[in-house]
Amino acid sequence: MYCIEHNELKQYDIKMEQSVKKNCKVCFEPSGLEIEVPVGSVLLEAAHKAGIYLSSICGGDGYCGKCKVIVEHSEQIQSRPTPLLTPDEIRKNVVLACQTHVLSDVTVTVPKSHTLETSQILMDSDAHRFSQIAGEVREGIFKFDPLVQKIFVDMSPPTVHDHTADHERLYLAIREQTDTPIMQTGFRILQKLPGLLTCCNYKATVTLGRRGKTTEVIEVEPGNNCSKNYAVAVDLGTTTVVAHLIDLTKAATIDTEATYNSQINFGEDYIRRIIYAEENDAFNELQNRIVNDVNNLIITLATRQKIDLQEITTVICAGNTAMVHFLLNLDPRRIRREPYIATASFIPPIRAAEAGVQINKRGLLYCLPSVAAYVGSDIVAGILTTRIFTRKGISLFADIGTNGEVVLGNRDWLVCASSSAGPAFEGSGVKHGMRAGAGAIEKLNILDNGSIEFKTIGNRPPVGICGSGLLDSLAELLIHNIIDRTGRFKADPKAEPRLSEGEEGRQFQLAPAYNGSHEIVITQADIDNLVRSKAGVFAAIKVLMESTQTKTQDLDAVYLAGGFGNFLNVRQAVTIGMLPDVPLEKIHFVGNTSIAGAKTVLLSRKALEAAEKIAKSMTYFDLMSHPTYMDEFIQASFLPHTDLSLFPSLKT
Amino acid sequence: MYCIEHNELKQYDIKMEQSVKKNCKVCFEPSGLEIEVPVGSVLLEAAHKAGIYLSSICGGDGYCGKCKVIVEHSEQIQSRPTPLLTPDEIRKNVVLACQTHVLSDVTVTVPKSHTLETSQILMDSDAHRFSQIAGEVREGIFKFDPLVQKIFVDMSPPTVHDHTADHERLYLAIREQTDTPIMQTGFRILQKLPGLLTCCNYKATVTLGRRGKTTEVIEVEPGNNCSKNYAVAVDLGTTTVVAHLIDLTKAATIDTEATYNSQINFGEDYIRRIIYAEENDAFNELQNRIVNDVNNLIITLATRQKIDLQEITTVICAGNTAMVHFLLNLDPRRIRREPYIATASFIPPIRAAEAGVQINKRGLLYCLPSVAAYVGSDIVAGILTTRIFTRKGISLFADIGTNGEVVLGNRDWLVCASSSAGPAFEGSGVKHGMRAGAGAIEKLNILDNGSIEFKTIGNRPPVGICGSGLLDSLAELLIHNIIDRTGRFKADPKAEPRLSEGEEGRQFQLAPAYNGSHEIVITQADIDNLVRSKAGVFAAIKVLMESTQTKTQDLDAVYLAGGFGNFLNVRQAVTIGMLPDVPLEKIHFVGNTSIAGAKTVLLSRKALEAAEKIAKSMTYFDLMSHPTYMDEFIQASFLPHTDLSLFPSLKT
Repeated sequence: MYCIEHNELKQYDIKMEQSVKKNCKVCFEPSGLEIEVPVGSVLLEAAHKAGIYLSSICGGDGYCGKCKVIVEHSEQIQSRPTPLLTPDEIRKNVVLACQTHVLSDVTVTVPKSHTLETSQILMDSDAHRFSQIAGEVREGIFKFDPLVQKIFVDMSPPTVHDHTADHERLYLAIREQTDTPIMQTGFRILQKLPGLLTCCNYKATVTLGRRGKTTEVIEVEPGNNCSKNYAVAVDLGTTTVVAHLIDLTKAATIDTEATYNSQINFGEDYIRRIIYAEENDAFNELQNRIVNDVNNLIITLATRQKIDLQEITTVICAGNTAMVHFLLNLDPRRIRREPYIATASFIPPIRAAEAGVQINKRGLLYCLPSVAAYVGSDIVAGILTTRIFTRKGISLFADIGTNGEVVLGNRDWLVCASSSAGPAFEGSGVKHGMRAGAGAIEKLNILDNGSIEFKTIGNRPPVGICGSGLLDSLAELLIHNIIDRTGRFKADPKAEPRLSEGEEGRQFQLAPAYNGSHEIVITQADIDNLVRSKAGVFAAIKVLMESTQTKTQDLDAVYLAGGFGNFLNVRQAVTIGMLPDVPLEKIHFVGNTSIAGAKTVLLSRKALEAAEKIAKSMTYFDLMSHPTYMDEFIQASFLPHTDLSLFPSLKT
Repeated sequence: MYCIEHNELKQYDIKMEQSVKKNCKVCFEPSGLEIEVPVGSVLLEAAHKAGIYLSSICGGDGYCGKCKVIVEHSEQIQSRPTPLLTPDEIRKNVVLACQTHVLSDVTVTVPKSHTLETSQILMDSDAHRFSQIAGEVREGIFKFDPLVQKIFVDMSPPTVHDHTADHERLYLAIREQTDTPIMQTGFRILQKLPGLLTCCNYKATVTLGRRGKTTEVIEVEPGNNCSKNYAVAVDLGTTTVVAHLIDLTKAATIDTEATYNSQINFGEDYIRRIIYAEENDAFNELQNRIVNDVNNLIITLATRQKIDLQEITTVICAGNTAMVHFLLNLDPRRIRREPYIATASFIPPIRAAEAGVQINKRGLLYCLPSVAAYVGSDIVAGILTTRIFTRKGISLFADIGTNGEVVLGNRDWLVCASSSAGPAFEGSGVKHGMRAGAGAIEKLNILDNGSIEFKTIGNRPPVGICGSGLLDSLAELLIHNIIDRTGRFKADPKAEPRLSEGEEGRQFQLAPAYNGSHEIVITQADIDNLVRSKAGVFAAIKVLMESTQTKTQDLDAVYLAGGFGNFLNVRQAVTIGMLPDVPLEKIHFVGNTSIAGAKTVLLSRKALEAAEKIAKSMTYFDLMSHPTYMDEFIQASFLPHTDLSLFPSLKT
């Protein structure tokens, strides 16, 4: 564990100074943040070092034009020429930060619209986790049989004695290699077929896409182009959108990227966004936002991996029902109104271009099936990933995102519910909360001497605190008696030095301020939000368990999903009373199962069929109309619970 | 039989004069044709009486603006105001003939582009024939199960306890009524579903279209609109395009219409048109022509029957392979080049709008399957209609259009071939040849005294001679020794008064000139063309029979298809040696089986499956590369044949 204390932070700085021959100061306005960097440093990197995260889709390749900043004097920097700046911008000293080297001290103005609030989100662990799932696909849990595949067909050209028409000749060749009893071909493909097959002497690459039980000839290209077949799996979260780039020929994740959901300006949860869209007739705008987010992620991944967008043939999405509706511009209004229904739970594959998603212009966009308005395809993906639906023993699954969806069941039955937990554990509605990205505190310990030890993602100076850090904080504050069982700060002498009165009431310092970074605190309001979230999740679990007469000891496994960070201490989820008190070895932190499930489906038609079976068989409990939910919620609004007998392990 | 002689023609005129109080003369330029009509007559009708067939898509409703003509003085007529004329046209005395009444003698100039060369083609008998086929569909030979159907679904609106999404709710309701295991829904339908279902309280009309084994939800409309579901069946001929309007709810033909194929300017047969298109890069233009022809027919039918184009959900086409390729802008070039192949023999259903065909914007366009480049879906339709493929006995089928396709077989096997017969029996390449339309001589007898008795379609003064009339003429000229067995005119004294030397050599008068109509003759060149056509057909039949060791006496039935006219004397087809010499009762004239087959398929999915089976099982013989075809052709170029033993019945 990397424990940053004052001295260490200084050392960090000193080391940097020592390694540098000649430095210059870069001052960023309007934040006033200053940093010293070696002469010749790239401005974008200097900004990142200062904790300022400029938008950059292309990853610093000078391609996206997003990292525009204004320098005070053009002599202070050296910029590569770029066509992405207008003459007027050049006159005004606008530069691309990624294409600009610092020559001397310089003041840089960052347009407000160009900052990301935090760093890019690190996806390494998810990528690692998926390599195992891809393994499962290969090893036959699901047969490797991607939804969209390319095959090379080597046909005999027609002769007088073999006058089969091109279209039927192609079908025969496809069927020699694949099990495709029902095929479809689009009109445009049919029209170009003769010219294409003639020019390549009937040796062609065919892209085949599954549409239910039908296989569509999506594209026909001359020659053998089978090795270039990519897909993007997307987790459409209310707060974050995550994308993984997959090589469909190798079932391998090549790269990952994430961004905030830019609909966030219209409301933190999707109910507020639906209301906003309804009141302002802004459904198209909300669609544009999420489609742009997805497109930006795809372009970033493709650019970084030097892949032509035409080679991306598939996009597969999992997400909550509202986000999928927004993406496809399906009317989401009735999701928030009784009787709370979706337009479609099983959305047929569509051409990605129809939704505005920029991949191969004939490529397909798939959505995993969902269960109900409040239990989306992300949860189906979670059940698929955790394999709860295949086992005899009863498992519990909880996905803590902006909502807290819980599923209970086994291979014979599945029940589910959604608590409107709120996005506290996603860092939203928490003063220094942030997504699990660089500089986020993801692990935190309060030592007996009152000092605090923590780990940040990327081992950088702390800029905020992510889900797992918040979980740790809440548990540690409770364990160390800094808060009581209602979540109120106590007048504990040990805690006193770190307690202060902030703008929003009492707050507790988790990390002191440091050159270029601010103090990290947790406020009373933050704690109240976190307690509400965990109470919602636990109450939902309780309702499902009571309804199915499942006792805590009946649980074979508990899966906790969500974008908490890489090092989640599942013990703490029991400590605060979010999860039932089962032996720790039964609790598994499974990360982003939404995207993992999407990737599994992408790679195997059988997995899609399994997902459809899961979605169909799950019984949904509406908590708002459930007679005991509010009682359960109130009881769970204590740490860990009013009824301590539910948490016997905590007594010891 | 109506026998027009000079005196009768006069009587015809006198009767007309008697019934009229006050007449005025209408003189049409540039033809110089004149006619007397009662004051107040509609100009369009006057033109038709004078034998001038103006384009008129709307049937005289003043809607299409096609029948524009120029009058000498505006005082001579009275015109209804119309928005279809520009002020400039009004100044130039342009009027719509259908909206103009004649007040006094008037000279009318007909723009050349606005005349049809002959009348509209009468379809009564085909419509009658079809009513029997519809009967067969109803009686269970094929189950009534149209390719596109509308069903009314009365769903329970969602409740908190029944939160099934709209899309799945719709599928459940559809499946209660239909056998549709595999369904698809377009993205646009999905997007509009919630608003639509809410507004009609979940009572809606669903249009379902078959796409292979998949059923597509083509349209969803509020309320019950099931009674309005129409289709148009189209026979895409090289010379003529025929369309029938079908009420899909009643399996009834409502109306029929036909037009010349306006590609005809680019070549009489499709090979010439392909060459033209290739040399002039005019594929789009050729597509536009045929698409416009189809659209004009559809608009004519819809306007006449007061049907909204949106209520036409289906277009089904049968035709030769080249015409279908032109319609869909599929590259037809390799149809004329070795190895003579089509782009597709089995063309998937497409949205009609994709090909530019103007029906419901989400309506489907189906093409019947074809066999080869030279044996199109019209022939498959013929085999379906005649039921050759269901019987144990061997039948022969010959379709005499611009090509002469022949099929031989039974329920176990089918062989086929195509002779490039040329369009002589369609009236093309024959001096006074015309389609089977009003004023066409469709039946002709030479009496022993040398006088000629004939019947015209619609009992009008003769304006030309159609296929059945040409067949009669050739047979009668042979029987009466006016031509010899090589088709040459003989110096027979009986024929002498009617023989003359025309611009194109010797010619024989079939009908004298008459006021407003011209003399009808058959020339030596006409006879040569007709003999070539029949020789091509007979040689093809001979090749198929020899190849399958079928003797004439093995033939259980002979079917002759084509647009010859309503009264075809099948005996004459044997007399000239076009069909094998089988007992007359075995020969059936079956008319336009292309459109009949298209309509059968339209009304029954089982019929489509049967058509697909026929197309797949038919073995194609390429006559051009066949070793004996040319010999057979030469031997068949005599009347009836060099080998008279093949025609024993003719000796008696």
